[in-house]
Amino acid sequence: MTKEHQPVAVRRGSIGAKRNPASQQAILEAAEAILREDGLSGFSIEAVARRARAGKPTVYRWWPSRAALLLDVYQGFKNERQFPDTGNFEDDLRAFLTNQLIGFWSAGICGMVFRSVIAEAQSDPGAAEALFAYERGRRKFAEVLVDRAKARGEIDPNADSAVIIELLAGFAWHRLLTGRIEGSDADVDKVVATIVAATKKNPGV
Amino acid sequence: MTKEHQPVAVRRGSIGAKRNPASQQAILEAAEAILREDGLSGFSIEAVARRARAGKPTVYRWWPSRAALLLDVYQGFKNERQFPDTGNFEDDLRAFLTNQLIGFWSAGICGMVFRSVIAEAQSDPGAAEALFAYERGRRKFAEVLVDRAKARGEIDPNADSAVIIELLAGFAWHRLLTGRIEGSDADVDKVVATIVAATKKNPGV
Repeated sequence: MTKEHQPVAVRRGSIGAKRNPASQQAILEAAEAILREDGLSGFSIEAVARRARAGKPTVYRWWPSRAALLLDVYQGFKNERQFPDTGNFEDDLRAFLTNQLIGFWSAGICGMVFRSVIAEAQSDPGAAEALFAYERGRRKFAEVLVDRAKARGEIDPNADSAVIIELLAGFAWHRLLTGRIEGSDADVDKVVATIVAATKKNPGV
Repeated sequence: MTKEHQPVAVRRGSIGAKRNPASQQAILEAAEAILREDGLSGFSIEAVARRARAGKPTVYRWWPSRAALLLDVYQGFKNERQFPDTGNFEDDLRAFLTNQLIGFWSAGICGMVFRSVIAEAQSDPGAAEALFAYERGRRKFAEVLVDRAKARGEIDPNADSAVIIELLAGFAWHRLLTGRIEGSDADVDKVVATIVAATKKNPGV
């Protein structure tokens, strides 16, 4: 398990987690089961605590907000998908957009869950803190995709990995939040072509 | 007044608007005053109707949701800013990002208003309808920026105007929704450089 894939509580090295790791896993499993069975409307700290046979304070000790717990379950769903490593920048970009973002959100409830966390984060500081930390981590993690292309000598070594990943993530968020996830394939190809053209090695160098 | 700049009610050609245009203007002015004075928390159809001395049904006849009315006031604020036309693609891109999106949102309450409408649109179908229509219109309108650069022979004529505008809008939305509007200037320059590099005329053509 890489650092990136650990739940918030473990990453934070909470004392509770050391005291009783089994119970933390039970809470995550209960949360995932509720989300799969009842969707977002049935998801609350109270419902999760009841199903995991834990006290609400126990859940809150590890996940300071409903959004933080939602994001850990969401990340669990995402980790079931392979992070792209095709050996080719263009294919990696396409796989990142389709497999990790747009395609991931169109499957099942994941898009709905993520939209809802983004929405909550606009008015609830706890949700904002959880989302921003999660999102910053994912973005950093995804930069490896650009760095690998640089290491292969495939693209301009001066290409800005962070900006490229944020352009892709921004496009995908925009599609999600304007209800246009479906039918994005042709535009995904155009976005990939745009980034590939922008990061071509300068022939004069 | 161009079509783009007309409020929802006028664009829809509502019968009410024809019957009593003064009252529609009074409602918009009341809405703007409330937003300027009390911010988002004081903004409701009820408060706007009271201040405009109109009935709530009158307001709802022209603006089907709180979000639709918010967006018309928001668009009024935006129309006070000049849409970029510098004669140069790179400067137009930068001005679009800073003046129309990121810089606009960091000034006063505009960013807060827009975040809130995006958040509401994720669970309220009326807000979603209003936001998606507004956003589609603005995006279409902004494409002129790319089309003009093509007409000047400045960029690749095959550059996809819609995808370029959505990449810029997506980046800006992402900054807004992850609380990172401030301090975006250096990255705005990198985004602009990326788009300029991607749309360079193919030297072989």
